[in-house]
Amino acid sequence: MPDYQPTPADKFTFGLWTFGNPGRDPFGEPVRERISPLRGVQKLSQLGAYGVNLHDNDLVPIDATPAERDRIVAEFKRALADHGVRVPMATTNLFSDPIFKDGAFTSSDPKVRAFALQKTMRAIDLGVELGAETYVFWGGREGAEVDAAKDPVSALKWMRECMNFLIYYVKDNGYNLRFALEAKPNEPRGDIYLATTGHMLAFIETLDDPSVCGVNPEVAHENMAGLNFVHGVAQALEMGKLFHIDLNAQKPGRFDQDLRFGSEDLKGAFLLVKLLEDYQYPGPRHFDAHAYRTEDEDGVWEFCAGCMRTYLILKEKVRRFNADPEIQGLLAEIRAGDAHLEGLMQSFSPDNARAIAALSIDRIGLGRAGRRYEKLDQLTIEVLLGAR
Amino acid sequence: MPDYQPTPADKFTFGLWTFGNPGRDPFGEPVRERISPLRGVQKLSQLGAYGVNLHDNDLVPIDATPAERDRIVAEFKRALADHGVRVPMATTNLFSDPIFKDGAFTSSDPKVRAFALQKTMRAIDLGVELGAETYVFWGGREGAEVDAAKDPVSALKWMRECMNFLIYYVKDNGYNLRFALEAKPNEPRGDIYLATTGHMLAFIETLDDPSVCGVNPEVAHENMAGLNFVHGVAQALEMGKLFHIDLNAQKPGRFDQDLRFGSEDLKGAFLLVKLLEDYQYPGPRHFDAHAYRTEDEDGVWEFCAGCMRTYLILKEKVRRFNADPEIQGLLAEIRAGDAHLEGLMQSFSPDNARAIAALSIDRIGLGRAGRRYEKLDQLTIEVLLGAR
Amino acid sequence: MPDYQPTPADKFTFGLWTFGNPGRDPFGEPVRERISPLRGVQKLSQLGAYGVNLHDNDLVPIDATPAERDRIVAEFKRALADHGVRVPMATTNLFSDPIFKDGAFTSSDPKVRAFALQKTMRAIDLGVELGAETYVFWGGREGAEVDAAKDPVSALKWMRECMNFLIYYVKDNGYNLRFALEAKPNEPRGDIYLATTGHMLAFIETLDDPSVCGVNPEVAHENMAGLNFVHGVAQALEMGKLFHIDLNAQKPGRFDQDLRFGSEDLKGAFLLVKLLEDYQYPGPRHFDAHAYRTEDEDGVWEFCAGCMRTYLILKEKVRRFNADPEIQGLLAEIRAGDAHLEGLMQSFSPDNARAIAALSIDRIGLGRAGRRYEKLDQLTIEVLLGAR
Amino acid sequence: MPDYQPTPADKFTFGLWTFGNPGRDPFGEPVRERISPLRGVQKLSQLGAYGVNLHDNDLVPIDATPAERDRIVAEFKRALADHGVRVPMATTNLFSDPIFKDGAFTSSDPKVRAFALQKTMRAIDLGVELGAETYVFWGGREGAEVDAAKDPVSALKWMRECMNFLIYYVKDNGYNLRFALEAKPNEPRGDIYLATTGHMLAFIETLDDPSVCGVNPEVAHENMAGLNFVHGVAQALEMGKLFHIDLNAQKPGRFDQDLRFGSEDLKGAFLLVKLLEDYQYPGPRHFDAHAYRTEDEDGVWEFCAGCMRTYLILKEKVRRFNADPEIQGLLAEIRAGDAHLEGLMQSFSPDNARAIAALSIDRIGLGRAGRRYEKLDQLTIEVLLGAR
Repeated sequence: MPDYQPTPADKFTFGLWTFGNPGRDPFGEPVRERISPLRGVQKLSQLGAYGVNLHDNDLVPIDATPAERDRIVAEFKRALADHGVRVPMATTNLFSDPIFKDGAFTSSDPKVRAFALQKTMRAIDLGVELGAETYVFWGGREGAEVDAAKDPVSALKWMRECMNFLIYYVKDNGYNLRFALEAKPNEPRGDIYLATTGHMLAFIETLDDPSVCGVNPEVAHENMAGLNFVHGVAQALEMGKLFHIDLNAQKPGRFDQDLRFGSEDLKGAFLLVKLLEDYQYPGPRHFDAHAYRTEDEDGVWEFCAGCMRTYLILKEKVRRFNADPEIQGLLAEIRAGDAHLEGLMQSFSPDNARAIAALSIDRIGLGRAGRRYEKLDQLTIEVLLGAR
Repeated sequence: MPDYQPTPADKFTFGLWTFGNPGRDPFGEPVRERISPLRGVQKLSQLGAYGVNLHDNDLVPIDATPAERDRIVAEFKRALADHGVRVPMATTNLFSDPIFKDGAFTSSDPKVRAFALQKTMRAIDLGVELGAETYVFWGGREGAEVDAAKDPVSALKWMRECMNFLIYYVKDNGYNLRFALEAKPNEPRGDIYLATTGHMLAFIETLDDPSVCGVNPEVAHENMAGLNFVHGVAQALEMGKLFHIDLNAQKPGRFDQDLRFGSEDLKGAFLLVKLLEDYQYPGPRHFDAHAYRTEDEDGVWEFCAGCMRTYLILKEKVRRFNADPEIQGLLAEIRAGDAHLEGLMQSFSPDNARAIAALSIDRIGLGRAGRRYEKLDQLTIEVLLGAR
Repeated sequence: MPDYQPTPADKFTFGLWTFGNPGRDPFGEPVRERISPLRGVQKLSQLGAYGVNLHDNDLVPIDATPAERDRIVAEFKRALADHGVRVPMATTNLFSDPIFKDGAFTSSDPKVRAFALQKTMRAIDLGVELGAETYVFWGGREGAEVDAAKDPVSALKWMRECMNFLIYYVKDNGYNLRFALEAKPNEPRGDIYLATTGHMLAFIETLDDPSVCGVNPEVAHENMAGLNFVHGVAQALEMGKLFHIDLNAQKPGRFDQDLRFGSEDLKGAFLLVKLLEDYQYPGPRHFDAHAYRTEDEDGVWEFCAGCMRTYLILKEKVRRFNADPEIQGLLAEIRAGDAHLEGLMQSFSPDNARAIAALSIDRIGLGRAGRRYEKLDQLTIEVLLGAR
Repeated sequence: MPDYQPTPADKFTFGLWTFGNPGRDPFGEPVRERISPLRGVQKLSQLGAYGVNLHDNDLVPIDATPAERDRIVAEFKRALADHGVRVPMATTNLFSDPIFKDGAFTSSDPKVRAFALQKTMRAIDLGVELGAETYVFWGGREGAEVDAAKDPVSALKWMRECMNFLIYYVKDNGYNLRFALEAKPNEPRGDIYLATTGHMLAFIETLDDPSVCGVNPEVAHENMAGLNFVHGVAQALEMGKLFHIDLNAQKPGRFDQDLRFGSEDLKGAFLLVKLLEDYQYPGPRHFDAHAYRTEDEDGVWEFCAGCMRTYLILKEKVRRFNADPEIQGLLAEIRAGDAHLEGLMQSFSPDNARAIAALSIDRIGLGRAGRRYEKLDQLTIEVLLGAR
């Protein structure tokens, strides 16, 4: 059996906020100390991770003086260097402070929007200083409980204005940084604007420079709405917009759980790893999750190790699936093409249209033919269970 | 009290399949005769509707001969003319026949895709013949239960290929016809590709001519995923892509109910009417719903009348909300702008960036200030309940 | 128009934790000061409420000394007396402290269960001292994320053991106190045992003295699972088990929102008020909700006033519905009985069975008859909207 | 590797309606012939199943003459005998015919209720004739879309009246038959009364003889509401009420999918098999599911074989989990008891209450201790994936 031991080449990353989560929730107080960034860098390095990601305030308190800020950042950079840990992605906390209670980029109050821009410019500077090449935007507060209060059309315009401003800010500074927008349907707001990866992909096309903006889909967020995560990721990937990804697990139709990757919906997790590996997604595999509130620090590291280990086990399953003769035989049969017809459909011409219109296709026969999907799905389950 | 009596100027439309729904469901047989298109045209005209919409096979059976087809169409056109009823929208049934059991435009089988193209070209011809200027695509079967069987990236490519083909077909024929794509997260497939209006808007941007393609959002479909429908419609509208709309009602997180408009989530229905009316959406208000299975033909017409009447009542509520001094006072306060800050944010310049970076904003004070949304939402509810 | 001004006779109550909610959530810090119990008692009295309810630690900190406890309680009792405010219900906080992170009565650790019993006995004493006649049990932590860790059968046995212990404790002390058990499907735990009012009703039947135990259904909790709240409350009521009720609002399939009563699903709220009023439910109408995080203290009182006002408006709608001749005519038709058949079915006898077996019933005709529910539901909506 | 070949000793059963499902859905026509009961009995026998279950009309058409009925039943009994196949469970179709469109036992119309009783008495006779010892009640139509039309309290009273009648009918006939009630939250009705296994367990306690009534929980039905299925089954089992079980798979928060057992939520399926096997549930393992609509008859048998095979693989996983020293070591640690404290809590006495009140429990220390659930859950996942 392979040892499933992660190495930096696997490009596994964790947010400072993930191992740093102290186990507070809406109904309970923290259960453990917040693990410090320095401790986390050291431990993740030992566990085989590639990097850490951060919100500005995961590292630097919102009310730090410039001197404190510089001291903290210098210390953190030393730890990164000492342990060979990268910071591939950074982001801004635009949700914890009460000023953002009705949104940051979509606040009705221009002062709040200006503050959000100010804070994000500083946080971008910080991210770039730490080496980040991807900048994530998760607009946790960009939503509403009272839709009568805020015109959703205005909200989108404000959001676009801010994103455009920041695109130019990055260009103006000559930063090598791409934006990855992250959707979530609700929580902490009643509803969040641009609720899914799909909405985000559409919004990106309306920005001044869509080429520098992609998405950061998160397993839990799409599953909260009961959507098929793999489908959404595939759409982003096919559009060349899969700039980053947040891996975790979630039971559908409930609060944001941020569970250990692979701990729910093993078939979905397998199909996701399959998509990423088959299409050679080059970016980090970022785990945006946290340990259960039942855990102490040891449990936090078990959680981190488990995320990576399950990814590697599933990657091995993908290899087996792709090498299984019976499965591949079924797939070849299922996916058999027809060069003539495909030629006709690939590009329109009046002749092709006439040819298609004139085709005599056996509607009844095709309706009766079995697709063998029960067989294929059962074999997939058996690969997953290690029963083949 | 106003009489809330619809007229064609209100642009209310119904699908032939809506009043024609015979009350069959997954666990039960039909409970009423399918009301014929001719009968429906006559009755809807009496009730004050503007038009009817149709799938090809709502009117012409899938196995009709050309002569039968022509006879049926001629008869239907006479009824439309006799009763002053329009056909503003048409679409293709690409879901009922067993040939489409694994998709139409996304079937792995090129013969099925070709058949779907053939059928759609014919149905477009029919729609245009009947006067339709909007052509809806609802890909009810474009999905999967077994994601291991079909690469979702391939599925999107096939879908795009077919849509592009049809865009050119319409142009080549000189038809005055725009496409409106309709999303749904699941049912009848386990998951449907391009699951929400957001995914559809993003997909449209990848077509050869996005300008002729918009969306047809449906209340029930977005609510099945628990998404905020008004937000999705607002995004489409803001992008200039709200080409059509399907009005009905739905309890979230369950099977597609297609309930009478306004029969669930009155606040959501009000906010939707408000968005459409405030932004003067010019298209038809199409009711894609059907009477409960408990009803006979009388109940079907009660259902149709109720959809229209509730829309008009809600439109009157919008007028009241917009004219209510206390509400408008609150909104003016909530939405107070700041010309200087807005000027700085509206377009990037290094100077503007520096000015924003240098702003001293009262984070603590803004975090403490109440937004008065409980008051505003309560007043909204009271407008809805007729208590102010 | 009635003035919808609440009075104590309406029996509206609020938890200390409801107006005291400081607007903290999983992604953000508090936005307002916690309003003190004393301030709340005064304000609620002015607004027309009947009483306040509390968890032990809403009033007395978990680590208060006996002297502090006595001082706080004495001061609170004076405020209650001064303002004529009652404490009809009390409960225990068995969820905030880290000791309860894996459950209180269902913790695998007997020390935790013993601590929970100890804490609850003290809290019961407090509740009784304050005049409470209903004691609520909401087992917020009685659940699991890792079902492999805890046998759910054992969990139920532990829960029963604790509930039985406390039943006897109350009897032994001669307290006039009934228990009301409150279900919730998930949050803060991944899943909570006894997930719905139905599960709770079943569990109660297995206790040593079911007669002193009923339920405390909460609108939001059942809606989180997409269940019909009115149906669940009706079952409790019909079993004589509706001992208390938590009123609020919630969008289905997401995190626990605890929204202002009536702010979502107006038809559902109306049907609930109708059930409570038609069956003359005698208990308090308790609002277990809190103001949006956008609000300051003024917003909190708007929220409280709005809960009560909407209840009263809906109660007036019930009166109108019950007095509407067209609606009542429809209902009389829909509910027409058949004394002979009802007699046969009401109690079994071999003769009745034979008589029923021999009946010739017009299956086809009954299948065709319309039930007129579209009409009835439309009239209900129009009553709600004030359009009749 | 074991061969996972089912035998009748495994007690696997299928409904005639499961393999007989022709692939019709709300948006599409049948895709395959309905496989006859006789063919099914033969094939299932070959595949290693134990028995088949049926609704009356799966075997005998609703309008069959007595002679036709007798001929069909005789032929079916011969097939059962020929192939050594049992009928352990039977039920009534009270949902397909239009007469039941507004309910059977909860119809407002006494004629419909009487017809439902008549039909059920005949179907019970049929079930007993075929050897059934369990009789399932799934009230698919016992619900509402329009709650204003039917008092849910009345609905429950009618339901109880009918169930009591049938309990006496069975006793009066001396049948050896127990009832198993099956809940579902919605579909085909907007909402179904007694929405979950919990509600059903509570309802049973109100019947004239609860001892002969238990439940038939179904994986898909509880998952539709996002509930933890294992918790619900555990409650039924602990109450001695798990009389039957319906195995399948379902994605939460959507239409009833009835997928192949184990094809979704492998961890949930494992935990379910673990509960049934650990507690030696003696009844049939009934698969209430059907093949995808993409399948022909071969696919149907693949589906049946897959259900059974996955159950057996998961049963083997349970054996491994229970034999894994590291897992069992963790569990022993997690579940360590405390005889003294458990003794105090097990039964109330004033002395025990005083002793518990006087305990000095280390609240802070217990709050800090890690539970090691991340580790345990990870090991569980690895057992499932065959990685240990």
